[in-house]
Amino acid sequence: MTKTKLRIFSYQPNPRIFKSTITARICNIPIEVRGAKPKELKNWLWDFDAHPMSKDDLKDQKEYIQKAKAGYQGELYKTEAFLSAHPYGTVPAAFSPDGKIGVFESNSIMRAVARLDKSNSGLYGHDPYSASRIDGFLDTTLLFARESQIYLLALMADKLNEKVYYDTERALTNWLSGIESALTNNNFICSDALTLADICFCCELLLLQSEHQWIEAITEIGEKLLSSKAIEDRFPRSLNHYEKLSARTDFSPDIKDHRAKIKSGQKIYD
Amino acid sequence: MTKTKLRIFSYQPNPRIFKSTITARICNIPIEVRGAKPKELKNWLWDFDAHPMSKDDLKDQKEYIQKAKAGYQGELYKTEAFLSAHPYGTVPAAFSPDGKIGVFESNSIMRAVARLDKSNSGLYGHDPYSASRIDGFLDTTLLFARESQIYLLALMADKLNEKVYYDTERALTNWLSGIESALTNNNFICSDALTLADICFCCELLLLQSEHQWIEAITEIGEKLLSSKAIEDRFPRSLNHYEKLSARTDFSPDIKDHRAKIKSGQKIYD
Repeated sequence: MTKTKLRIFSYQPNPRIFKSTITARICNIPIEVRGAKPKELKNWLWDFDAHPMSKDDLKDQKEYIQKAKAGYQGELYKTEAFLSAHPYGTVPAAFSPDGKIGVFESNSIMRAVARLDKSNSGLYGHDPYSASRIDGFLDTTLLFARESQIYLLALMADKLNEKVYYDTERALTNWLSGIESALTNNNFICSDALTLADICFCCELLLLQSEHQWIEAITEIGEKLLSSKAIEDRFPRSLNHYEKLSARTDFSPDIKDHRAKIKSGQKIYD
Repeated sequence: MTKTKLRIFSYQPNPRIFKSTITARICNIPIEVRGAKPKELKNWLWDFDAHPMSKDDLKDQKEYIQKAKAGYQGELYKTEAFLSAHPYGTVPAAFSPDGKIGVFESNSIMRAVARLDKSNSGLYGHDPYSASRIDGFLDTTLLFARESQIYLLALMADKLNEKVYYDTERALTNWLSGIESALTNNNFICSDALTLADICFCCELLLLQSEHQWIEAITEIGEKLLSSKAIEDRFPRSLNHYEKLSARTDFSPDIKDHRAKIKSGQKIYD
């Protein structure tokens, strides 16, 4: 059996985890992803050895109870070892194979996979400058991702309002303006080859498309889907790049079915 | 003459640049920082060869005029090469020594300096997992930094309101809760040795202390300095860590005078 090089615990499906699974596929790195739908994670033990608990298990784990934060309600069962490896207590939560080193934030989990690459894929650049330029794009994407998280949680909780919508639109416009400008000069975001910047871009745009599930709430405030509106109008290169990336054989195993499901309006977490 | 390994163009002084200058000092990497006070940058050519322009120069550079974005007003002079290297058009803006590769976002500029390190400092970890754990802390710090940027720009523009204050406080509390938890187990944020996570933490907290310059506006909404309030109350380990880092001989050349100046209430950009 091939030894897993990284274990990730997360709610699923999660386009932010696709950043890592796509990278792992390209670099041929064996990784393991554990998890379940968001509401089922309430009955999981949050640990390196994360697993669903029986009713008896749940009674025994009282000392682990933590108040849930953003995106969850009620109580969660997080071990001390989990919180030591993951001081923010969040998922996705990745671990080194011995469970000792915790890696958090989906961009950085993806970075871990890329750093394990011995195939010279160039996904994380070829020198200190190109690697750090890729990180710059990951950083600006993270700033957008923060806003889109607020937007999607508002939709999920049936609490969308105009302010949240327009804040997210502004963040999307700012993010894509840089991507669009970068794609004027190159075939890929960071250079003329595929890098983590492209993988991150594709998965964050896919995540934003989750908004399809709540199109009625968006129509109610007199607006359209952000992912269609902003891109089709002003960012043709970004849209074209997204389509090209999504269709790649190393992306589509993660992207294709998920995208079809959300575009059909199907609720993915029910 | 020692050859510069990275050139950074920025308004100055800028605690976010201290991330790079501290890293460069520890690793003994020669870097160059160019720039001036924010309002003077309006008369600079924004380029790899950034420099202040004379009145005649300004007339000749009309084709470079760009509408200023966040933090600036009026017009800025950005060359095509600048915008190609920096698709978001922002400062701080770093360049490889040949000017061809642009690196943006202060955390990623710091990463570039650390990647140039050949001294085995361990500042960026020792393996794929520890390096990516450091990146996770840089990412959570970036999410706070985005909020503190909004807060400081509001103070600077005399537009502080309660919403901005409390949003920033919430982000600060979330950020420091993870730092505080991490410092329960280790002497430094990421492990038992100094890493980029500590340098980034220290410089972002220093930047937040810039609020001292506008203490009247903060008092006017019935509040206290965020940097004092949140830390002293609930985050004693974080405060202690900040003090210890600031006093280090490899940090203090950047930190000491700047901190004294802002704590005295002196306006640093006038």
